[in-house]
Amino acid sequence: MFDNKEHTNIEQLGEFGLIKHLTKNIKLGQPSTIKGVGDDAAVLDHSGKKLLVSTDMLLEGIHFDLAYTPLKHLGYKAIQVNLSDIYAMNGIATQVTVSLGLSSKFPLEAIEELYEGIYIACDKYNVDIVGGDTSASKQGLVISVTSIGYAEEHDIVYRNTAEEDDLVCVSGDLGGAYIGLQLLEREKQVYLENPKIQPDLEGKDYIVERQLKPEARKDIVELLKDIGVKPTAMIDVSDGLASEILHICKQSDKGCNIYEEKIPLDPMTFETAREFHLDPTICALSGGEDYELLFTVKQADYDKIKFKMDFTIIGHITDAAAGCNLITKQGNVHPLKAQGWNAFTNLT
Amino acid sequence: MFDNKEHTNIEQLGEFGLIKHLTKNIKLGQPSTIKGVGDDAAVLDHSGKKLLVSTDMLLEGIHFDLAYTPLKHLGYKAIQVNLSDIYAMNGIATQVTVSLGLSSKFPLEAIEELYEGIYIACDKYNVDIVGGDTSASKQGLVISVTSIGYAEEHDIVYRNTAEEDDLVCVSGDLGGAYIGLQLLEREKQVYLENPKIQPDLEGKDYIVERQLKPEARKDIVELLKDIGVKPTAMIDVSDGLASEILHICKQSDKGCNIYEEKIPLDPMTFETAREFHLDPTICALSGGEDYELLFTVKQADYDKIKFKMDFTIIGHITDAAAGCNLITKQGNVHPLKAQGWNAFTNLT
Repeated sequence: MFDNKEHTNIEQLGEFGLIKHLTKNIKLGQPSTIKGVGDDAAVLDHSGKKLLVSTDMLLEGIHFDLAYTPLKHLGYKAIQVNLSDIYAMNGIATQVTVSLGLSSKFPLEAIEELYEGIYIACDKYNVDIVGGDTSASKQGLVISVTSIGYAEEHDIVYRNTAEEDDLVCVSGDLGGAYIGLQLLEREKQVYLENPKIQPDLEGKDYIVERQLKPEARKDIVELLKDIGVKPTAMIDVSDGLASEILHICKQSDKGCNIYEEKIPLDPMTFETAREFHLDPTICALSGGEDYELLFTVKQADYDKIKFKMDFTIIGHITDAAAGCNLITKQGNVHPLKAQGWNAFTNLT
Repeated sequence: MFDNKEHTNIEQLGEFGLIKHLTKNIKLGQPSTIKGVGDDAAVLDHSGKKLLVSTDMLLEGIHFDLAYTPLKHLGYKAIQVNLSDIYAMNGIATQVTVSLGLSSKFPLEAIEELYEGIYIACDKYNVDIVGGDTSASKQGLVISVTSIGYAEEHDIVYRNTAEEDDLVCVSGDLGGAYIGLQLLEREKQVYLENPKIQPDLEGKDYIVERQLKPEARKDIVELLKDIGVKPTAMIDVSDGLASEILHICKQSDKGCNIYEEKIPLDPMTFETAREFHLDPTICALSGGEDYELLFTVKQADYDKIKFKMDFTIIGHITDAAAGCNLITKQGNVHPLKAQGWNAFTNLT
């Protein structure tokens, strides 16, 4: 993987040397960052605002496969996955801490690539890296990110506050990340069987990028603020649409009707799902990793959102007794089930 | 390891089931915790105070060995290691997030044991668990904790603010955690060679506990406040006294004289080091994992601290040109070197 590159052994640098090397280019841009890397703890000041904190861990072999995941993309994605949770609270992300468990097989140049992706993501989303931990790992690569953000109390959107008749909206399109993963897995198998065959990803950039380099939807949070719409409930789509809408309905003690024909699918997602003999709707419902925002909006806000291209109205909230249903294109009613990607059954 | 216990397969529970099971007994006690586990992010309010954030990752095979580490102790230690960083800023720890990577070989009961230790530590130190992530791990157990605390701006103590002539103090005693580890490693080897021989840890409780169940020194932060002493610089002893005092001196652009005869050693640490043909002073200087607080105090505060039993004056800060020195019992001057436990060379 790193054969054409320069190799610097991280053991020579030692832990403090490595941390120093990796953090020397950190630029702090947030007024709320008082002290970043370099002491026992970071010092932050979000005076007057509510603080938002979220954390996610990515493990090699479970959440990513280095056979087809460029380290720069992985670093970028590790940040996006975490920022997405802050935006899902209708907040602004401001800081992250990044802990890495690194196999000794990694030369310094590989870790630099990983960090480059982390830097690019933080820079683009205006987030400061304020701390972390770097250690050897005897097993595989481990990336644990904690993201910190803020919001005014009246702006925070929880999962458990959807109301009957609210419109259910989702940003972007769904299922692409999952079908991109199927494609990468297939090309990996082809390569393993015959290393001379080059991966065939031609024309599939969009879905491959959805898997390898997702974007957290900070822009949606900003857009909703601009048009004066505060969602009544919100969550990010990490485990698939079905799992996420069930979280909102269960925690809000409500039901929902989701219309299959309204679920936004990119044409490439649709086409490639067909190639794999998969139902594109199932990819959207159960695929996950799209990191879009799923939110509910009062009917009264319909006029403000009806012409917005960045998200789609896919259904509405009902009372709990009506259950959580998918209305198919044929008009059939199916109870929604969370068959999201399960990190545990994945192991079996 | 879990042979006499009930086994519940975590795959049956699934990720959400497991999280629900593990978090159902969380009690929130901090007024600053607005919303804990259960949404995309935790919501906190530390209005008017500066926020402190620190993170540490513990990896199986690097930071702990399950052959001799009870899971309850490990959970307890994972929290202590993190809180220690908040206290080292002279702050009060209030919240933690806990991310776990779990091997599928772990039955639910094992994870419950781990969590029990986490709960006990959080309860004892009055800290809320407000978030986390739980995932399968294909390799070993991974524990990543982020701790959050607060302090008034004028109370925060950094590493880089030691002044010439300040007294260097350290809480408790040093080297015990390291020599406890040597003992556990020896007994593991004996056991591996002959499983019929029971581990011989008789009378060694103190040093074994120093390794397996350290206590972060919240009490020292409180004591210093009570006696009206604000340290000029502070750090926690995770990598050994030498490494930590060098951090303070380097970041403060100062030197120091540390007196070997003043370094606090428990008699059991001293005795057991001798049994292992190790120099007890080297264990204190380079052993690490004691999680004591190392801090500097103005000479003017000497009268306030001179009779305190909870910490020891072990030297003083000099100008940078004088270097960082250990004055041996024989009066020889040796430059201090950080030969702390290095997570990377450890792998070789």
